[in-house]
Amino acid sequence: MLGSTHGTLTTDSRRARVIACGEQPAPAVHGRPAATDDLDVSGRPLYAGVPDLDRFFRPERVAVVGASDAEGRPNTGITRQLLAWSERVGARLYPVHPTRESVFGIPCVAAVGELPEEVDLAVLLVSDPLPVIEELAEAKVRFAVAFASGFAETGAEGAAAQARLAAAVERSGLRLLGPNTNLNAFEKFREDLDGPAIALITQSGHQGRPVFTMQELGVRLSHWAPTGNEADLECADFISYFAEQPEVGAIACYVEGLKDGRSFLLAADRAARRGVPVVAVKVGRTETGARTAASHTGKLTGADAVVDAAMRQYGVIRVDGLDELQDTAALLARARPPSADGVVVYSISGGTGAHFSDLASEAGLCLPTLSAGKQAELHEWIPEYLDVSNPVDNGGHPVGDWRGRKIIDAILADPAVGVLICPITGPFPPMSDKLAQDLVDAAEQTDKLVCVVWGSPVGTEAAYRETLLGSSRVATFRTFANCITAVRAHLEHARFSSFYRSPFDEAPRTSSPSFRKAQALMRPGQQLSEHAAKQLLRAYGIRVPREQLVTSAAASVRAAGLVGYPVVMKASGAQLAHKTELGLVKIGLTSASQVRDAYRDLTDIARYEDVPLDGVLVCQMVEPGVEMVVGVTQDALFGPTVTVGLGGVLVEVLRDTAVGVPPFGEDQARAMLSELRGRALLDGVRGRPPADLDALVEVVLRVQRMALELDGELSELDINPLMVLPRGQGAVALDALAVCR
Amino acid sequence: MLGSTHGTLTTDSRRARVIACGEQPAPAVHGRPAATDDLDVSGRPLYAGVPDLDRFFRPERVAVVGASDAEGRPNTGITRQLLAWSERVGARLYPVHPTRESVFGIPCVAAVGELPEEVDLAVLLVSDPLPVIEELAEAKVRFAVAFASGFAETGAEGAAAQARLAAAVERSGLRLLGPNTNLNAFEKFREDLDGPAIALITQSGHQGRPVFTMQELGVRLSHWAPTGNEADLECADFISYFAEQPEVGAIACYVEGLKDGRSFLLAADRAARRGVPVVAVKVGRTETGARTAASHTGKLTGADAVVDAAMRQYGVIRVDGLDELQDTAALLARARPPSADGVVVYSISGGTGAHFSDLASEAGLCLPTLSAGKQAELHEWIPEYLDVSNPVDNGGHPVGDWRGRKIIDAILADPAVGVLICPITGPFPPMSDKLAQDLVDAAEQTDKLVCVVWGSPVGTEAAYRETLLGSSRVATFRTFANCITAVRAHLEHARFSSFYRSPFDEAPRTSSPSFRKAQALMRPGQQLSEHAAKQLLRAYGIRVPREQLVTSAAASVRAAGLVGYPVVMKASGAQLAHKTELGLVKIGLTSASQVRDAYRDLTDIARYEDVPLDGVLVCQMVEPGVEMVVGVTQDALFGPTVTVGLGGVLVEVLRDTAVGVPPFGEDQARAMLSELRGRALLDGVRGRPPADLDALVEVVLRVQRMALELDGELSELDINPLMVLPRGQGAVALDALAVCR
Repeated sequence: MLGSTHGTLTTDSRRARVIACGEQPAPAVHGRPAATDDLDVSGRPLYAGVPDLDRFFRPERVAVVGASDAEGRPNTGITRQLLAWSERVGARLYPVHPTRESVFGIPCVAAVGELPEEVDLAVLLVSDPLPVIEELAEAKVRFAVAFASGFAETGAEGAAAQARLAAAVERSGLRLLGPNTNLNAFEKFREDLDGPAIALITQSGHQGRPVFTMQELGVRLSHWAPTGNEADLECADFISYFAEQPEVGAIACYVEGLKDGRSFLLAADRAARRGVPVVAVKVGRTETGARTAASHTGKLTGADAVVDAAMRQYGVIRVDGLDELQDTAALLARARPPSADGVVVYSISGGTGAHFSDLASEAGLCLPTLSAGKQAELHEWIPEYLDVSNPVDNGGHPVGDWRGRKIIDAILADPAVGVLICPITGPFPPMSDKLAQDLVDAAEQTDKLVCVVWGSPVGTEAAYRETLLGSSRVATFRTFANCITAVRAHLEHARFSSFYRSPFDEAPRTSSPSFRKAQALMRPGQQLSEHAAKQLLRAYGIRVPREQLVTSAAASVRAAGLVGYPVVMKASGAQLAHKTELGLVKIGLTSASQVRDAYRDLTDIARYEDVPLDGVLVCQMVEPGVEMVVGVTQDALFGPTVTVGLGGVLVEVLRDTAVGVPPFGEDQARAMLSELRGRALLDGVRGRPPADLDALVEVVLRVQRMALELDGELSELDINPLMVLPRGQGAVALDALAVCR
Repeated sequence: MLGSTHGTLTTDSRRARVIACGEQPAPAVHGRPAATDDLDVSGRPLYAGVPDLDRFFRPERVAVVGASDAEGRPNTGITRQLLAWSERVGARLYPVHPTRESVFGIPCVAAVGELPEEVDLAVLLVSDPLPVIEELAEAKVRFAVAFASGFAETGAEGAAAQARLAAAVERSGLRLLGPNTNLNAFEKFREDLDGPAIALITQSGHQGRPVFTMQELGVRLSHWAPTGNEADLECADFISYFAEQPEVGAIACYVEGLKDGRSFLLAADRAARRGVPVVAVKVGRTETGARTAASHTGKLTGADAVVDAAMRQYGVIRVDGLDELQDTAALLARARPPSADGVVVYSISGGTGAHFSDLASEAGLCLPTLSAGKQAELHEWIPEYLDVSNPVDNGGHPVGDWRGRKIIDAILADPAVGVLICPITGPFPPMSDKLAQDLVDAAEQTDKLVCVVWGSPVGTEAAYRETLLGSSRVATFRTFANCITAVRAHLEHARFSSFYRSPFDEAPRTSSPSFRKAQALMRPGQQLSEHAAKQLLRAYGIRVPREQLVTSAAASVRAAGLVGYPVVMKASGAQLAHKTELGLVKIGLTSASQVRDAYRDLTDIARYEDVPLDGVLVCQMVEPGVEMVVGVTQDALFGPTVTVGLGGVLVEVLRDTAVGVPPFGEDQARAMLSELRGRALLDGVRGRPPADLDALVEVVLRVQRMALELDGELSELDINPLMVLPRGQGAVALDALAVCR
């Protein structure tokens, strides 16, 4: 019954298909994943399977449809690369071509139906992959890759072609990468590198290249999924799959647009449960970026603040530049869980230590002052006049001899220290070569994180290229900023992982008793009156002032008696906005005569302004507190989202709000409040009492519940203001606006 | 007479000495510099000469005091480097040593007094330079460099030794670099590089190394001044000198602490008048950084927000990382003045264009949509389905042939375009080598700025190392972020330069008629009563409400009649604070009986709270407007500064304030308002009328004048709130607090 009333109900055909394709059991790392057939109360899935992509990345038999060895044809180069790749991975390659006898000496078959055995993967080098899909399905091919462009990225016509392709793929039971993708998945990966690897997902081959190239700097890469237009397989599928692979230490993504909000959240949730960090560039901070990205991939970009919130809730580390993506993913892939948050900055120059510490402290890293005992120990090797409290300044000379390693080991032995960072801005081989080697040697013998910033802009020095990059245990950076960004991400992700509880495990599956009461108040396509909107809130247990809707002066006086003086009176009507500006609110009325006059004034103004009223509200006057706003808005990607913000001038001028993307739990609701710049107001400023945070959090959670249960009916809700009273006294919605779908 | 009343009067002995040392006439590039003997009304100089450092950087005769060629002594290595350097620059070197016959085959003299001819520069390799200074002066040596450490950087004792050294230097008439400096000024600079150069100033040799090393990437460096402890020559001296050198395109600074605020401002002003950009890292964003920097250099760091404001006012570009310092200084040194603000992003990948444009737009760069005509022109060479509106996506292939150069030239020919940026994230030699060459060729033939981001993390590719770095006309970056930072700095600095009018030309030199009135109100060491503080404001032409101070209930009723109903009444006393919290303010009093009751209440509360009153203020009730705060605070480096901020919750919770460092003019006062996050409140929100900005700016300027004239007497002023009424109606100081020195 529930499902039928919900317009945005998501079909679970995709999930069924994923399972058909080879389901892996979901691991129970942090808590039990939701059961397979779970939907939340809004009809959105609480579970997504992990596609088994083993045979995609490591196929045994591959068909190349449209293979060529004719001089000068683009397909010839691609076929040659695929041949080399299949040899490397030990796959048998079958060229498919309607007219050729053989390609590069390998006999051709004329059509997919003529393949001598079942193949795992078909690479489609044809300009129109659609007609081939059915043949592939009949031949029981499990995976296909379509390189052809000219689909959603070119406009409406291409989007329609892509929809036909997607439908054919869905019918077929196979999984498709593309269209508009490329050879990146079939690159040559270095196999001589050690340590956990980065798995890479990109929506642009060019943009993935820098991360891929990190292999030349010694960083291991295990996979590259160039998702193209995502007619079928999407970024989320690869996140889920990579999160399960033992060799993957971190997942790096370059995203222009998400195909589906919920599938992204479920994939991020899976990575979060397993503690696998996901680092992402997501284009669309600005209108320009969103527009350009959309024209490039044919995808929605969604409201950026919502994407940002979704990523934060599920521990996805969002970065801006590809250099940050490289450096952060490399560190998170390889660093072990931190034993402590404390960061020590160690340098051969007081200036470098001061500068780095300044930027690191500003970014929120914790630089503990080393204990007196530790400082005394360091002064065994470092001259007394140098500051070793943290940053540790060794003055240069001690790194040149036996003392260098002693100092590093002594710092790393301190239990307050989880991270040692050594910025080397000027390479001076007699010192820096030995320092680099000592850092590498020390890093190989500790679980703690050792970072080096190699500040020379040249980057061809042996200490950098050979010593530092030669070790997977030292994280080497080129800039202070990227080192700080990556270390902070590492420490924050570790904290996030240790506290993570999946909100999907606690998301509501069935509607609450409030739902039926609320449904009765809905007026499709209309804005509710303030009175009706408040009844809706009351249905979900959100406090509103005592109030009565009256239609005569005499009734208003009776109502004021029942509500209790002093009272507030407001005009009430279905389409009423800007009541205060129009003079349609009267506050602080203390007597029957004031109430009677106010009734007359309000109805006079409404008549003059030609505003239809359904009556006048006589409301209890609520004590002052902290004015907040709480609301529901719809996002194209994620559906209903909940906003909380500080009221009055802060929300009007500074738009000081935080967004929550359902499902989220109490912890995340509290985290939203911490994002507010004016947050201190809730803690009490200038001697005012602290506000009732628990009550505010409860309202946010109840609004989330309402948004999910009424997903098909409610398009917008705005409680403004929500008066949050002093601690222990609750929160009261003084005014509300609700718009039905 | 004026001078004698001002405690912080700065002596002009330094300036006299600079002139003695060889004055260069100040150039009149933008406006006339202040005359030589000008002081502002606070006694601070309005002018600083440019030390003639030609013979410091290019001496003809150099003495090395403490020269050595004995195996294993540190001075031997230094002497060898100085020998090599003096040969390069064509200087004759005289070793000075009390016992040696010769050093490296050059005959020694035993003491400075025995030098056979006058030398320009003496390099002091002795552990205590103090005794040598007098000898140098007698020998008419013009410059000395002291390498010895153990001065202000080591604590109080070292600071005293440094003060003795500074005094000796001041008496001597020579100019000293150091102590605690190094060989950086005598490095080997590449002379084969073309284009305008970077001049470098650093307070740490290690921290300057990356900028110096930029020469290996083809960026020309002309000077390096490692200022050390700045007992005499300071950062400001080198800024002034470098700004006058024709080969210097930009000045790069690494600063831990400034020696003197005013001399820094005057140097920045000189650079601003000449349009020479100054790019600076300034340590001290945080307490940690400030503390560590102070312990490293023994200097004050000043309040960071004040340093930030001072730099902004005088066009100094502040950056955080050394990589930003390198990249921004290199671009600003070499780029010609922009012909337009428009930035076009040109790429071989739609994804790269979308990503770069997103970050560039977010940073505030202007990416104009290319005209239909220009787009049609580009589509002659670029397939129709690709977006060429800006970003321009060429799809890759056109760069490989003759079309590549045509596209670049067509973009550069657009008059709306001042900057072309081509991000190349994945080097693919068949395309990127040709693209790099085309960009270099095009850049050599245009005055417009051509930038490339070479995104490969490897950086050893020929297209990068040889083609791009081989041209001084292309600005090549390694990250999107640094390219955007540098381009924005270039465009903003050009705009700054074209509008720059030196505030020193308009700074007040003599006191205004207000000064004598104000002086009479000062009470040394005390906080003034609200009434007295308001009289002070009135003396400077700042409007306050009509008000009377009364000491009886009857007088308060008479006063209310004169002031006009409704009135506000407030307790008044010299040390009174938190009046509102104590209930010592009554507003909206409309009748004699209310006034009489209020008088009684206020005096009762004061008695109960044991607060001594000098009476009760009966004040005019002012119409509501936008509440602001305007104040004066003292900065250790810069003296009095003026703060303006939004009142109420914005200043309480968000500290939404902007600082002005005197002297500043009207434009800069307006710019301060634009820095406020809640600035929109002044423009009118939710239908409220725009506030009287002119009146607000006038108050800020009058407060500046007051702060300068009363510099010796007034330690703190706080107007809170200043009620800014709707446009044309002025601004009224409703309350004020003033503390005398």
